[in-house]
Amino acid sequence: MLLQLLFLFLFFPFSTTSLNIWPKPRNLTWTPPHQTTLLSSTFTITTTTLHHNNHLTAAISRYTNLIKTEHNHPLIPPKTNLSNNLPPLQTLTITITNPNTELNHATDESYTLIITTPTATLTAVTSWGAMHGLETFSQLAWGNPTRVAVNVRVNDAPLFGHRGIMLDTSRNYYPVKDLLRTIEAMSMNKLNVFHWHVTDSHSFPLILPSEPMLAEKGAYDVDMVYTVDDVKRVVEFGLDRGVRVIPEIDAPGHTGSWALAYPDIVACANMFWWPAGSDWPDRLAAEPGTGHLNPLNPKTYQVLKNVIRDVTTLFPEQFYHSGADEVVPGCWKTDPTIQKFLSNNGTLSQVLETFINNTLPFILSLNRTVVYWEDVLLDDTVHVPSTILPKEHVILQTWNNGHNNTKRIVSSGYRAIVSSSDFYYLDCGHGDFTGNNSIYDNQTGSDKNDGGSWCGPFKTWQNIYNYDITYGLTEEEAKLVLGGEVALWSEQADETVLDSRLWPRTSAMAESLWSGNRDEKGLKRYAEATDRLNEWRSRMVSRGIGAEPIQPLWCVRNPGMCNTVHAI
Amino acid sequence: MLLQLLFLFLFFPFSTTSLNIWPKPRNLTWTPPHQTTLLSSTFTITTTTLHHNNHLTAAISRYTNLIKTEHNHPLIPPKTNLSNNLPPLQTLTITITNPNTELNHATDESYTLIITTPTATLTAVTSWGAMHGLETFSQLAWGNPTRVAVNVRVNDAPLFGHRGIMLDTSRNYYPVKDLLRTIEAMSMNKLNVFHWHVTDSHSFPLILPSEPMLAEKGAYDVDMVYTVDDVKRVVEFGLDRGVRVIPEIDAPGHTGSWALAYPDIVACANMFWWPAGSDWPDRLAAEPGTGHLNPLNPKTYQVLKNVIRDVTTLFPEQFYHSGADEVVPGCWKTDPTIQKFLSNNGTLSQVLETFINNTLPFILSLNRTVVYWEDVLLDDTVHVPSTILPKEHVILQTWNNGHNNTKRIVSSGYRAIVSSSDFYYLDCGHGDFTGNNSIYDNQTGSDKNDGGSWCGPFKTWQNIYNYDITYGLTEEEAKLVLGGEVALWSEQADETVLDSRLWPRTSAMAESLWSGNRDEKGLKRYAEATDRLNEWRSRMVSRGIGAEPIQPLWCVRNPGMCNTVHAI
Repeated sequence: MLLQLLFLFLFFPFSTTSLNIWPKPRNLTWTPPHQTTLLSSTFTITTTTLHHNNHLTAAISRYTNLIKTEHNHPLIPPKTNLSNNLPPLQTLTITITNPNTELNHATDESYTLIITTPTATLTAVTSWGAMHGLETFSQLAWGNPTRVAVNVRVNDAPLFGHRGIMLDTSRNYYPVKDLLRTIEAMSMNKLNVFHWHVTDSHSFPLILPSEPMLAEKGAYDVDMVYTVDDVKRVVEFGLDRGVRVIPEIDAPGHTGSWALAYPDIVACANMFWWPAGSDWPDRLAAEPGTGHLNPLNPKTYQVLKNVIRDVTTLFPEQFYHSGADEVVPGCWKTDPTIQKFLSNNGTLSQVLETFINNTLPFILSLNRTVVYWEDVLLDDTVHVPSTILPKEHVILQTWNNGHNNTKRIVSSGYRAIVSSSDFYYLDCGHGDFTGNNSIYDNQTGSDKNDGGSWCGPFKTWQNIYNYDITYGLTEEEAKLVLGGEVALWSEQADETVLDSRLWPRTSAMAESLWSGNRDEKGLKRYAEATDRLNEWRSRMVSRGIGAEPIQPLWCVRNPGMCNTVHAI
Repeated sequence: MLLQLLFLFLFFPFSTTSLNIWPKPRNLTWTPPHQTTLLSSTFTITTTTLHHNNHLTAAISRYTNLIKTEHNHPLIPPKTNLSNNLPPLQTLTITITNPNTELNHATDESYTLIITTPTATLTAVTSWGAMHGLETFSQLAWGNPTRVAVNVRVNDAPLFGHRGIMLDTSRNYYPVKDLLRTIEAMSMNKLNVFHWHVTDSHSFPLILPSEPMLAEKGAYDVDMVYTVDDVKRVVEFGLDRGVRVIPEIDAPGHTGSWALAYPDIVACANMFWWPAGSDWPDRLAAEPGTGHLNPLNPKTYQVLKNVIRDVTTLFPEQFYHSGADEVVPGCWKTDPTIQKFLSNNGTLSQVLETFINNTLPFILSLNRTVVYWEDVLLDDTVHVPSTILPKEHVILQTWNNGHNNTKRIVSSGYRAIVSSSDFYYLDCGHGDFTGNNSIYDNQTGSDKNDGGSWCGPFKTWQNIYNYDITYGLTEEEAKLVLGGEVALWSEQADETVLDSRLWPRTSAMAESLWSGNRDEKGLKRYAEATDRLNEWRSRMVSRGIGAEPIQPLWCVRNPGMCNTVHAI
């Protein structure tokens, strides 16, 4: 009986008074009585200021079309009254203070959206903020005919300026259309950085004008490449959507594919990654696919500087990611020149220092800020002194050891980008990709061991949502955290699973970095986020993004009933 | 130096002398010099016997088209010489002893395929065996123009007669096209059972002529249903591909959705699944979504018998799956009638016995063999005596406790279908779907705990491939194991992830149940299987099945180089 009463108390009808926006704005008010009005068939978006920003023009055109044609069908429609007294919404008027400000990690992305009828207004400091406002506006429209929530005011701005996805296009190739769709989805989630880990040991898909041999020999196939035009298209597509495209040319490790064009500049290329009988510390690579650029061969820098020059030309972006993760001692030790250097009391860290000293100043001379993986400074065995990594020009991206390494980076005065493999690695939890592994020949099911995945288990959207990237930092230290990136390494991913690996889990990070993961009372809001994420996932699917479901539809239709613990 | 020598020894060029067929045939010989010939542009498939089997006719037509148009591009082409001396292949001639034998778990599925040119021959006892032979033949053709391996002889037959997929279409809905694509992929993998878990507590998508209210009220949406015509289409589509479609109407548990049409026959419907403050054993359901049919209400059987009669009419298949898993004491205890029965010294097991006694004889009267989940006999708390489950008419499907429960079932004299959740549950490892769960609010990443998935970690293809479903059984007991089914429960799955959850992991089971997981020396052949599965996965993708990648393409191109341990 008590249970039946509880049921009556708990059971909600199929509607909600909240507006479903993802990521949740910092501040939103919807003045009662929570009305909507129809979108006029002649609805337009105009700007009050003359501007010559083609990216803004493209965004306005795209959102005008989306808003008029999307007709989103919410899983649970917001509880509103469509008033017959209100005139239809005719215009959204945009006012931008500095429409030509460029997009970087410190750009003002704030906006204010006020929806009254027949005219709504959107004000922003930059075009990039205006684009976010347009996205928010699009999520406040639904139904057929399209209705829009009115008497809504949104004041919004991100907590972190760097919110991204890292995608590895070397281990498996992704067609350009998949990159574009990913950037499109990023923009819907107000993410602003597509970190393109374009090359690695497995393939070199990027066609570079000065070094065409690298892709000609190193790509998987003549069709599995990115041309200069492809790159331009991706970069422009990103800017039309407020997304920077940061290239990463990982070096000196992770360069086996370079050896197909230039065997003499790559140590240990195409060797078995973990030689029979050798101990783990003596392996030649972090995983199958060996090869490190040889810092002691002058020719290395001839090729690499051509590469860097071409890449900085192709990618106008201020950041250049130079990799420098996972330098494995065993690899360099196979090279006779390096062996000689070591036998003369040289160290592997000095070899790396030689590499950095021969490349970093060159990249800086091209007016770039350099991002390295944390290893360059924090690796236990092979690392360089901070004296050669100028703090004003170098940013470190952390992936190991959770908060501890974030703390080490920022307490040393460096800016950090957080990609903790404990939380933000989207490839984890699907077992290991290496072949011939006897751990899987197991008849009892008892040795679970994360299923063989080095960074298992799978990172659920809740794990990602709840992670606080500045946890344990002082206020001053926290200011050095630019933001975060989820990472999809592609050993077990390609276009067939791209959307479902990324979404909606990346949406969880997107909200956490945009407006945080806590409600007004300071409590984690994952419960409230669940229903909203169901709606958002559904809307992403209808927009063509194959995001995976997080619950049975029944849970959405019966709010609260799929909770783990009953809320009293 | 030694390493470089090893490299030379190990590095294989881009070709292979093995033929890539999945699942691997029991016996295949390709007589040297490993020749291929062109497929004639007038190639045809003919039968020597007159038959009136429409399913066979459809299969021949489909494979004729596939073989002529597929032009598969292997990742590594088999190393062959296309002889200019050999005439093109003109004809595949099929001879079938009993073309009209029906398909069940004991049907002869063997075939012999002999490819010489200009005529190849396929002989089989049944049409179903012939269909498997056609699939094998299709995998022996590749390239553009199409070439076919010649002087090939395949003698083949499955180890187990029941090889299937269980798909839950209640927790989330799947459009019919996705079911059809799944059956198509099953046929490619020589699987023969699509176990359709069509209803559950979350939705009732099946429109039944005698009980239309169940779907009218219980389906998620008017568009999220399976009509009589849909079912007929699925069943026929299956038979055209050698796949039986076994319906499951889960009862008495997992029936919450029935309450929308018939609230009085369902106990504890729509209550919070785990009431606040109660202990785990007192929860009302195994997961959110409560409701058990009430065995003490005579009306239950009026409705259920209509359902059973309709379902057996719709599905001509000999097996009827009646569910009976996860009867949860707390649910029935909420019902006043059952409370009264218990207070008069009745037991919950007697309540279940009442249910079985009122339904099983009826199903048997419709000439069906009944499959139950093992719980009906093996559940610790609520189960019935084996005396009421006739061994000749009842089959038990095992999912708990690995080999131990398989052993309990077959040592009791029942036939078993193996779906161990430790190996064959494809939904595991993606966290828990329940909302508002504080275990995910964790800043250290140290509490891994399978990421919250009750059956985590993720089951890799290798786990699945290596599982021996008759492990620990005597030879006599092993004969009672009909085969196995992977299971995809759909809390976190729907059409967006269907293909990648199922494939190629289900291919791993398909081979293990078809020809086993060991080579001629009795050693597990997972290493050899890796390269072949890469090829097969690629071919499935080109056939429109979105199977997930298992390795970087680099690994396929460099055989052996991605192994875990170096083979000497």
